[in-house]
Amino acid sequence: MKLWQKNTASLKEVENFTVGKDREFDVMMAKHDVLGNIAHAKMLATIGLLTNEEASDLVAELKNIYTTTSPDSPTPFSILDNIEDVHSQIEYLLTEKLGDTGKKIHSARSRNDQVLVDVKLYMRDELEEVVNTIVPFFELLIKQSEKYKNDLLPGYTHLQLAMPSSFGLWFGAYAEGLVDDMNVLKAAYEIVNKNPLGSAAGYGSSFPINRTLTTKLLGFADLNYNVVYAQMGRGKAERIVAMALANVADTLARLSMDACLFLNQNFGFVSFPAELTTGSSIMPHKKNPDVFELIRSHCNRIKALPNEIMMMTTNLPSGYHRDLQLLKEHLFPAFKTLKDCIEMAGLMLSNIEVKKDILADEKYKFLFSVEEVNKLVLQGIPFRDAYKKIGLDIESNNYQYSTQVNHTHEGSIGNLCNDQIERMMKAQIASFNFEGVHAAVNDLLK
Amino acid sequence: MKLWQKNTASLKEVENFTVGKDREFDVMMAKHDVLGNIAHAKMLATIGLLTNEEASDLVAELKNIYTTTSPDSPTPFSILDNIEDVHSQIEYLLTEKLGDTGKKIHSARSRNDQVLVDVKLYMRDELEEVVNTIVPFFELLIKQSEKYKNDLLPGYTHLQLAMPSSFGLWFGAYAEGLVDDMNVLKAAYEIVNKNPLGSAAGYGSSFPINRTLTTKLLGFADLNYNVVYAQMGRGKAERIVAMALANVADTLARLSMDACLFLNQNFGFVSFPAELTTGSSIMPHKKNPDVFELIRSHCNRIKALPNEIMMMTTNLPSGYHRDLQLLKEHLFPAFKTLKDCIEMAGLMLSNIEVKKDILADEKYKFLFSVEEVNKLVLQGIPFRDAYKKIGLDIESNNYQYSTQVNHTHEGSIGNLCNDQIERMMKAQIASFNFEGVHAAVNDLLK
Amino acid sequence: MKLWQKNTASLKEVENFTVGKDREFDVMMAKHDVLGNIAHAKMLATIGLLTNEEASDLVAELKNIYTTTSPDSPTPFSILDNIEDVHSQIEYLLTEKLGDTGKKIHSARSRNDQVLVDVKLYMRDELEEVVNTIVPFFELLIKQSEKYKNDLLPGYTHLQLAMPSSFGLWFGAYAEGLVDDMNVLKAAYEIVNKNPLGSAAGYGSSFPINRTLTTKLLGFADLNYNVVYAQMGRGKAERIVAMALANVADTLARLSMDACLFLNQNFGFVSFPAELTTGSSIMPHKKNPDVFELIRSHCNRIKALPNEIMMMTTNLPSGYHRDLQLLKEHLFPAFKTLKDCIEMAGLMLSNIEVKKDILADEKYKFLFSVEEVNKLVLQGIPFRDAYKKIGLDIESNNYQYSTQVNHTHEGSIGNLCNDQIERMMKAQIASFNFEGVHAAVNDLLK
Amino acid sequence: MKLWQKNTASLKEVENFTVGKDREFDVMMAKHDVLGNIAHAKMLATIGLLTNEEASDLVAELKNIYTTTSPDSPTPFSILDNIEDVHSQIEYLLTEKLGDTGKKIHSARSRNDQVLVDVKLYMRDELEEVVNTIVPFFELLIKQSEKYKNDLLPGYTHLQLAMPSSFGLWFGAYAEGLVDDMNVLKAAYEIVNKNPLGSAAGYGSSFPINRTLTTKLLGFADLNYNVVYAQMGRGKAERIVAMALANVADTLARLSMDACLFLNQNFGFVSFPAELTTGSSIMPHKKNPDVFELIRSHCNRIKALPNEIMMMTTNLPSGYHRDLQLLKEHLFPAFKTLKDCIEMAGLMLSNIEVKKDILADEKYKFLFSVEEVNKLVLQGIPFRDAYKKIGLDIESNNYQYSTQVNHTHEGSIGNLCNDQIERMMKAQIASFNFEGVHAAVNDLLK
Repeated sequence: MKLWQKNTASLKEVENFTVGKDREFDVMMAKHDVLGNIAHAKMLATIGLLTNEEASDLVAELKNIYTTTSPDSPTPFSILDNIEDVHSQIEYLLTEKLGDTGKKIHSARSRNDQVLVDVKLYMRDELEEVVNTIVPFFELLIKQSEKYKNDLLPGYTHLQLAMPSSFGLWFGAYAEGLVDDMNVLKAAYEIVNKNPLGSAAGYGSSFPINRTLTTKLLGFADLNYNVVYAQMGRGKAERIVAMALANVADTLARLSMDACLFLNQNFGFVSFPAELTTGSSIMPHKKNPDVFELIRSHCNRIKALPNEIMMMTTNLPSGYHRDLQLLKEHLFPAFKTLKDCIEMAGLMLSNIEVKKDILADEKYKFLFSVEEVNKLVLQGIPFRDAYKKIGLDIESNNYQYSTQVNHTHEGSIGNLCNDQIERMMKAQIASFNFEGVHAAVNDLLK
Repeated sequence: MKLWQKNTASLKEVENFTVGKDREFDVMMAKHDVLGNIAHAKMLATIGLLTNEEASDLVAELKNIYTTTSPDSPTPFSILDNIEDVHSQIEYLLTEKLGDTGKKIHSARSRNDQVLVDVKLYMRDELEEVVNTIVPFFELLIKQSEKYKNDLLPGYTHLQLAMPSSFGLWFGAYAEGLVDDMNVLKAAYEIVNKNPLGSAAGYGSSFPINRTLTTKLLGFADLNYNVVYAQMGRGKAERIVAMALANVADTLARLSMDACLFLNQNFGFVSFPAELTTGSSIMPHKKNPDVFELIRSHCNRIKALPNEIMMMTTNLPSGYHRDLQLLKEHLFPAFKTLKDCIEMAGLMLSNIEVKKDILADEKYKFLFSVEEVNKLVLQGIPFRDAYKKIGLDIESNNYQYSTQVNHTHEGSIGNLCNDQIERMMKAQIASFNFEGVHAAVNDLLK
Repeated sequence: MKLWQKNTASLKEVENFTVGKDREFDVMMAKHDVLGNIAHAKMLATIGLLTNEEASDLVAELKNIYTTTSPDSPTPFSILDNIEDVHSQIEYLLTEKLGDTGKKIHSARSRNDQVLVDVKLYMRDELEEVVNTIVPFFELLIKQSEKYKNDLLPGYTHLQLAMPSSFGLWFGAYAEGLVDDMNVLKAAYEIVNKNPLGSAAGYGSSFPINRTLTTKLLGFADLNYNVVYAQMGRGKAERIVAMALANVADTLARLSMDACLFLNQNFGFVSFPAELTTGSSIMPHKKNPDVFELIRSHCNRIKALPNEIMMMTTNLPSGYHRDLQLLKEHLFPAFKTLKDCIEMAGLMLSNIEVKKDILADEKYKFLFSVEEVNKLVLQGIPFRDAYKKIGLDIESNNYQYSTQVNHTHEGSIGNLCNDQIERMMKAQIASFNFEGVHAAVNDLLK
Repeated sequence: MKLWQKNTASLKEVENFTVGKDREFDVMMAKHDVLGNIAHAKMLATIGLLTNEEASDLVAELKNIYTTTSPDSPTPFSILDNIEDVHSQIEYLLTEKLGDTGKKIHSARSRNDQVLVDVKLYMRDELEEVVNTIVPFFELLIKQSEKYKNDLLPGYTHLQLAMPSSFGLWFGAYAEGLVDDMNVLKAAYEIVNKNPLGSAAGYGSSFPINRTLTTKLLGFADLNYNVVYAQMGRGKAERIVAMALANVADTLARLSMDACLFLNQNFGFVSFPAELTTGSSIMPHKKNPDVFELIRSHCNRIKALPNEIMMMTTNLPSGYHRDLQLLKEHLFPAFKTLKDCIEMAGLMLSNIEVKKDILADEKYKFLFSVEEVNKLVLQGIPFRDAYKKIGLDIESNNYQYSTQVNHTHEGSIGNLCNDQIERMMKAQIASFNFEGVHAAVNDLLK
C-alpha cells in the first residue's frame, strides 16, 4: 500500500518526516535556550508581565535545568518522546515544577525568535571554541617555523623546481594564513553576536518588551533591531559562519595536500612516526598519511557548506519558512569536525620529522641559479649580463653554486618575521571580547 | 588536420590558449601596476639598486603612463600585440623612453609578486567603490522606511498570512542587512589591504629590499610577511572578496524576490512607473519586473562565485600555478555587475509606488487576531484564556479587530530604530580608513 | 593537555578520527559485500585458487551471512567493536566457521576493489529503488492531470498574470519532467552497473583471475576494464549518481515552491486536509505547508551534493586516496531522503483540493485577451489588426471575453498528450533491465 | 547625480542593464532561429495560417539569411542597433523583403518558445561537436596506451608507492573514462533533442498548430509535449548539459593534474617538447606545464557551472522569468572552452615523451614485493606464509625481485582490453543518431 492510500488523519509518517533529526540538534542548543529563557523572564518582570516572584521562581528553576545541559550531568537533559522540541520541553519542565507560572514565560515571544536566539548563542559559543582551538595550533606552527628555520626545501612554481624555500617559511606561511582566517571569523562573530530576541514571529509584537535589556543580559554586543531583519538573519548568519569556517578549512586542506606530497617517496621531505601513519611489512617505506587525507576531505567538504546553505535559502521570500530547520544538520557538526581536524593537524605537525640537507642533493642544483645571478647583480653586474653569464656557465658545465642562501628582507628565509605574525594574531584575538560575553553569561547564571 | 598533427614549433594555438583573455583583464590593472612600479622604484633607490636619478626618471615616466590609464585619456593605455602582459608593456614603455634604466626596475621582483600586488590594489579600489555604491542605497532604504513607516502590509510565515508588517519594516530590514554585509566587506578589505610585494616568485630573494617601505608607500595597512604565504594569498584573497560580494548579492537577490512577489497581481502591494517595467497593451495590468529579475539572476550568479573559485584552487599544493590566471575572468566583472545591480535596485526603489491601506481588505482580518489576543493579555487576562476567547469569537463570527497596531518595542512597526541602524552603518564605514589609502596613493603620484 | 602532547603510540583519537562514521555506512553495504564475496569465491574455484569444496563451503556460509543483512533478521549483521570494517567482519565470520578456508577468500583482491564493488552494488540497488518510487508518483501525477484537466488556473510569466493554464497542465508538466529525470538516472545506472572487481588496489594483479566471470555472476552489464580506471570510478560514479538525484530533487523542489505559492492566501488555488498542514485556531485560514517546505529544503540540499563531491575529489591525482571514504556520508542518506520526499509529495498531491472556477474571478479577465486576439486571427483578421482591436476594446471598456479556452494542439490545455508522456516513461523504464540484474543475483544466492 | 535622481522616462541605463550581453549570444543562435522559422513557416502553411506562396517566399528568404549566419559569410549576420534581439532582427529582415508576409510568421508562437527552440538547437549542435572532438582524442589515448603498454611507472595509493602500473594503463584509463562521460552526454543530448516549439509563452495557444510536424522537420526525436513542461525545460536542459560537460571536464582536469605531477622533477616520468612548455635558460630543467595548468583550471571552472545554473534557478516558481536570460553567458562559451581543452590535451599527449625504464631505479624496488608474494602463492604457498617470507627477506636484506610483471587478467598491464574499451565507445557513439538530425536539417534547407 502506498503511503498516500492510508488514512491521512493518523499518519505518523508526516510527523516523522517533519520532525526529522531536529530533536537531536535541539538538545545541542538546550543550554542556550535556557539562557534565552532566563533573560526573557528577567525582562518580563521589568515590564510587569511577570511578578518579581514569578520571575525569580522561573530563573531558579531554569538554572537547575541549565546544570542538566552539561555533558557531565548525572541527569542529562533530553526531550521527551511526546514533546516536540527543546522550547516545549523546557516549558514543560517549568510548568511541571511551577504550574501556571511556567506557562507565562512564553508571553511576548514566539518559537521563531527563540530558535533564532538559540542558534546565535550556539554559534557564538562554537566560534569561540574554534578560535580557542586555532590559537595553540597557530603557536605550534610558529614554534615549528622557528625550530626548522634553517632547514631548506625546494620551492616550486608550476610544480616545477624553482627556488630554495625552507621549512621555516612553510610552517610560518600556514601560521600567517590563520591570521587572515581569524579576521573573517571575527566578522562572523560580530554578526552572530547581535540579539534577535523579541522579533517574535518576525514582525514584533504589541507587548512593550525591552529588547535592549535582553541584549545586555545575554552579552550581545548589539541588537538585530529591525524585526523583519532579525528573522532574515536565519540562514544568513549560518551562511556567513560557514564561510568563515570554510576559510580555516581551506588553510588546513592545503596544508594537508602539501604534507601528503612531501611524504610521497619521490619528494621524501618529511616523515611521521609509524603510529600516525599506516604501513605494510612488505612495503617498509609505505607510510600512508590517512590522517592528512581525511583532514583534507573533511575540510574540502566544509568548503562546500556555504554553497549548500545558499542553495537551500536562495529565492525564498522574506519571512520564516520551514526550510530553515535543516540548516543545522550539516553546519552544527561542522564545528566539531573542524576542531577535530585542527587537533589532528596539530598532532601530526608536532610529530613531524623533517629531512635534513634536502638541497644537498645535486638534482636540486639549479634551484640556486637565481641566487647566483642575484649575487652578481649585488656585485654591480647588470642583471641581464649576470643572467647571461650564469646561463653560459650552466651550458658549459661550469656552473658553481652555494647552498647557503642569504635572504634578509621581511618574511624571507633569513628573516621570517614570526614576531610580526604573532603580533597580528594577538590583535585579532584581542578584538573578539570573549570576556564581556562570559561576564554577562556568568551574571545571568549567578 | 587535427591540431596535434601540425608542427609544434609554430603553434599559434598554444599561445592563444595560454594567453586567453588575460590581456583584457591586465589592462584593468594597468594603473595598479604603475603604482606598484613607482613604489618599487623608490624603494630600490633607498637600497642602492637604483641611483636617485634613475629612480626619479622612472617615477616621472611612470606618472606619465599613469595618466594614460584613466578612461578619459586621449591616448588610452593598451598592450601591444607582440607584448605578453601589462608588466611587460610598462617595462617596454619605460625602456623605450629611458633605455637601460627602464630595464633596471625589474630587479628584486618577479611577475608573480607584481601580479599579486596588482590584483590586491585592484580589489582594494573595487571594494571601496562597492562600499561607496552601497552607502547611498542604504540611505535610500532608510529614507523609504521612514516615508512608508505607517503603511502596513501582511507579514507572512511559511508564505501564509501571519501578522501585520509594514513597508517601514520591509525597507528598514534590507538597510540593516547591508550593515552586516558591510562587516564582511571590511574583513575582506583588511585581508586585501596587505602588501605581497617583495615575495618575488613566492620564495623571496637575496636582495636586501625594504618591504616595510613599499607597504607604507602603497598605503597598505600591513604586510603579507611570510613570502610563501604572500603567494598563497592568490586565490585566497579572491575567494574572501567573492564571499563578501556574495553576501551583498544575497541581500539584493532576496529584495528582488520580494519585489517580484509584491508586484504580482495576487499580492499587488507595490507598483512601478511604466518606464521601469515592461507591459502589453492587451494586458494592461501586466508589469514585468525585468529589472528585478535580472538583479536577482546576476546576484544569484555572484553567490556561486566563491564556490567556483574554490573549485579552481582546491588541492593545489602551495606555490604558484598558472591555474590562478583564470580567477580574474569572473571575479573582476562581478564588481561592476554588483554595483550596477545596486544602482538599478536604487532606481527601482526610489520610484516604487506603495499601495495604501492594503490591510483594510477583509481578507487580511485574521492577521490581527494575535494583536487582539495580546491586547487582552495586556489587560491582565492570562494568555491561554485570551487565546481561547479570540478563537471562540472567530468560530462564532463575533471576531472584532482594529487595524491599528501599537508596537512600541525596539525595531517594531512603531519604533523602527532606523537611527540605530544608521549608527551601526556609520561605525562600519568609519572603520575602513579609505582616507589613509588615498593619502598614500596621492603622495605616490605627487 | 593538548592532544599532541600525549604519547602518540597509544592514541585512541587517531583511530576514532580515521574510522569516523565509516562503520555505520559499512553495515549498509554488508549484503553487497557478501554478494561480491560469493562471486569472487566461485571465480577463484575456476582458476584453482580455491578447491571446489572450499568454494562451496565459503558460498554456503556467505549465504548464511546474507540472511543476517536483512533488516528483519533476528540476528542482524553488525561489525564487532575490535574489527575495522565490513570486509574484515565478513572474513572474520568466515574464518571463525571455516578456519583457514575463510582466509583464502582474500586472494587476488584488495579492500580497494572490494569497496568499489560494494559501493557500486549499493548504488545499483538504491537507484532501482528510486526508480520504483518515482513510477507510482509519476502515475499519480498523470492521474491528477487527467482528473483536473478542466480546472483552469492563471499562467504566469515574470510572475505576472499572462495566459490561462490548467491543473491538467500543471500536474502533467511535473510528470513529463520525471521522464527526462529518468533518462539521466538511466545513464547513472549504466555507469554504476559495470564491474570494478579484480582491479585490486587499482593496478590489477598477477593472479589469473577471470573478471568476465564475476561480471556475469554479479549481473553487471559490462566491466570497468582498465584497472586504473576502475579505481578512478570511485568518486566519479558517486558524482554522476548525485547529479542524477539532483535532477529529480530539482523537479520536486520546484513543485514544492509552486505548491507553497498556490496555497498562499493571495493565490488560494489549492488546499490540503488539516492533518497535512499545520494551523492555528485564531488564524483559521493558516495552513502551513511544512511538508512541502521540508521537501523543498531537502531537495535543494541534494542539489548541492554533486558540487560537494566534486569539491572533495578535485585535483586528486589518480590512485586511491583516503579522502574517498567520506563520500558515503552525505550520498548514502540522500537516497532515502529523496525517496521520502517523493513519498511525501505523493501523499500531499493525492490529497490536494483544487479550487474550482478560479478564473471566473474578474481580476483574471485579461488572461483571456490573447485568446480573443487569436480568435480574430483565426477568423482571418491580420494579427496586428486583431491585437489593436482588442487593445482598443480594453481601453474603452468594451472588452468581452469567454473563459472557455479551446486549445487543441499537442500538449495544450485541451490535448494534454498524457498518453504520449506515459509512452516515453515506459520506454525509459524498460531500458533499465532490472530483471537481468535480479536474475543474476538470485542465481548467486540460489 | 545618482541614477535614481534622473528622469526615469529617458533612462538608457535600464535598457543597457536589461539587454546586457544578450545580443552577442543571440548572434550565436541566429542559424538556429532561422531553422526554427523555416519549420514554423512550413507548418503554418499546412494549417492555413499562411498560404503556400507566402510560406515558400518566407522559406526562400530564410534560406538566404541562413547563409549569412555562416562564419565565412561575406555579409555576416548581425543585429541592428535599434533592434532588440535575434528574433526581431530576422522578422525585420523578412518584413523588409516580403512586407506583410514577413509579419505573419510570428503567428502562433511567442519569443518564449522561439528562444527555447533556439537554445535547444544550439546545444544540440554543440553537444555533437563536443562528441566529435572527444572521438579523435579517445583514439589518441588508445593509440598511446598501445604504444606505451610495456612502459611501467609506479602506481600510487595514498600518493605512496604501491604497485607497478604502466603508461598503457594510464592512457587507457582516461580513454575508458571518456566512455562513461559519453553516456552522460548522450542522456543530455536526448533531453535536448525534444521539441519545445509551439509551447508559446509556456501555456500553448488556441491555434491549431501541428507540433508533431515541426518536431519532424527540425529532426527532433520527440516532443516536449506538455507546454508548461516545455517552458520548465529552460534552465533544466542547460543544467543537465552543464553536468554532462562537467564530467568530461573532470576527466581532463584529473589527467592534467597527473601530467603536472609526472612532469615534476621529483617524479620525472614524462617530458614535452620545449615549444609546448615554458622554461628558463638558467634553470634548464624547468618545463612549466602551462597548457595543462590552464586545462585544469578551465575544466575545474566548468565543473562549477552546474551549481551556478542551479543557484540561478532554484526556487523560481514555474513559468518564465527573465532570470533565465543570463544562463547563456557562462554556458555557451563553455562548449568552446571544453573543445579547446580537449584539443590542447590532445596536442600535449601526442607529443609526450615517456621516460623509459623508470622502475629500474632501485628506489622503486618495494613496488614489486606484492608481485613476489603472489608468485609464491601461485606456486602453492599459502598467502600468509608467502607474505611472511617476503617480509622477512626484506628485513634481512635478502629481498630479490624481478621487474617483469606478468599480469594477464582483463584490464591489467598485460591485457589492457583496449579493444573492449573501443567497442564500448563505438556503441555509445552509434546511439546518438546524428545522421537523422543532419538529414532533417538538410531537408529543411534544401
